[in-house]
Amino acid sequence: MTDAPVLILVNPQMGENIGAACRAMLNGGLTELRLVAPRDGWPSESATRVAAGALDALTVKLFDTTAEAVADLQRVYASTARPRDVVLPVVTCARAAQELRGLAAAGQRTGVLFGPERAGLANGDLAFADTIVTVPLNPGFTSLNLAQAVLLVAYEWFQAGDDTQPTLLPPTVGDPATVAQVEHLVSHLEESLDSVQFFPTAEKKPPIMRNLRAMLHRLSPTAQEVRTIHGMLTSMTGRRRDGRTR
Amino acid sequence: MTDAPVLILVNPQMGENIGAACRAMLNGGLTELRLVAPRDGWPSESATRVAAGALDALTVKLFDTTAEAVADLQRVYASTARPRDVVLPVVTCARAAQELRGLAAAGQRTGVLFGPERAGLANGDLAFADTIVTVPLNPGFTSLNLAQAVLLVAYEWFQAGDDTQPTLLPPTVGDPATVAQVEHLVSHLEESLDSVQFFPTAEKKPPIMRNLRAMLHRLSPTAQEVRTIHGMLTSMTGRRRDGRTR
Repeated sequence: MTDAPVLILVNPQMGENIGAACRAMLNGGLTELRLVAPRDGWPSESATRVAAGALDALTVKLFDTTAEAVADLQRVYASTARPRDVVLPVVTCARAAQELRGLAAAGQRTGVLFGPERAGLANGDLAFADTIVTVPLNPGFTSLNLAQAVLLVAYEWFQAGDDTQPTLLPPTVGDPATVAQVEHLVSHLEESLDSVQFFPTAEKKPPIMRNLRAMLHRLSPTAQEVRTIHGMLTSMTGRRRDGRTR
Repeated sequence: MTDAPVLILVNPQMGENIGAACRAMLNGGLTELRLVAPRDGWPSESATRVAAGALDALTVKLFDTTAEAVADLQRVYASTARPRDVVLPVVTCARAAQELRGLAAAGQRTGVLFGPERAGLANGDLAFADTIVTVPLNPGFTSLNLAQAVLLVAYEWFQAGDDTQPTLLPPTVGDPATVAQVEHLVSHLEESLDSVQFFPTAEKKPPIMRNLRAMLHRLSPTAQEVRTIHGMLTSMTGRRRDGRTR
């Protein structure tokens, strides 16, 4: 992960917020942090406490100026609301993450700048950036704290390199039943319903059974669940599968 | 937004965390919150303080049990780590958001369950869900607080319905220059370089100028920036564009 972007916090105020940012960035697998003149100094007890162990996995470097903190980087993104008076391209957080993955694959050193808690990045700091990153959110109420902004950038970075399938298989508490096992259950259900004179007329039985069959297949039960339903049917009708009453 | 999913917080502990969740959800345009037996009661002064105005835009309803809180919903997602002993499909946060948008478009009432801060959802609550939502994050360090989990769900919900272009045009501090304006600047630069005998030989001039031309077009300057560069050239060479020395 040495080609993952560096995060640079410019003039962060409270240690708690630095700690929360550390925790947030590590969630997305980002491990290099640079601090530019943190107000309350570094290291910070409150940061360590809030970081909840994240600091053990991070490298943190301290700088006096933004210029020094970004000097070795080749592409710099700035996370900020869309500025009014700086001419820079603006990309969404998700797009920035894709670009950062591409730059990492090309071996380039990249970084993302974040401003102080309330004020955000000053124009003097934005001048070091090539690109602005904004998070598209509710235009009527956009209210992210520093750690949340870091979290969204880290989350998108992770997503952009993640091969998790969007839909995962259910956890294999038991193996899914085979079609034949479900069909066996359908037969048992049919026998059970016959035994209690469930079907009002012979004509109505086929469509009802068709719907019940579709429902059971749609359920995709596990083999264990199929056994459980067999047991329930047996209990409710008082009939074993072999037709003998108990 | 009446078809947006309801968020249901089951047994939340601290008012601060409820307030932070309120703020997080509104960032993504989610406005319906249900609370199941919050430990410290409701309304909560600490929640109101941390919500930073978000409560004004939310409807919040209080319930005694999870069963009552989800009773009117048609599809229920549960945000939790992948459970070991419940048979439910598991989807990523991004996929869940797409599904929720689809369900909303079909007019279905949906909700997303979140468990208490540390413990997460109990299996008894998971039984009300149709689908588990997990956030793919650093497997070596996944550490989200309640409001951060809510933020990621709300963010993905917003993204799934957002038509923001991934790459936005630079803010129009000034209009981008036309190709002709950039070419005019190239000519001025060429004259300026000629005037100071910059080109070592006549043969080397064309490739150098080709590279400079490409660089200036790649810059995509605004009309104002073009004027500024004209001024800089004039100042540095002591020559006006009409060829007269100052």
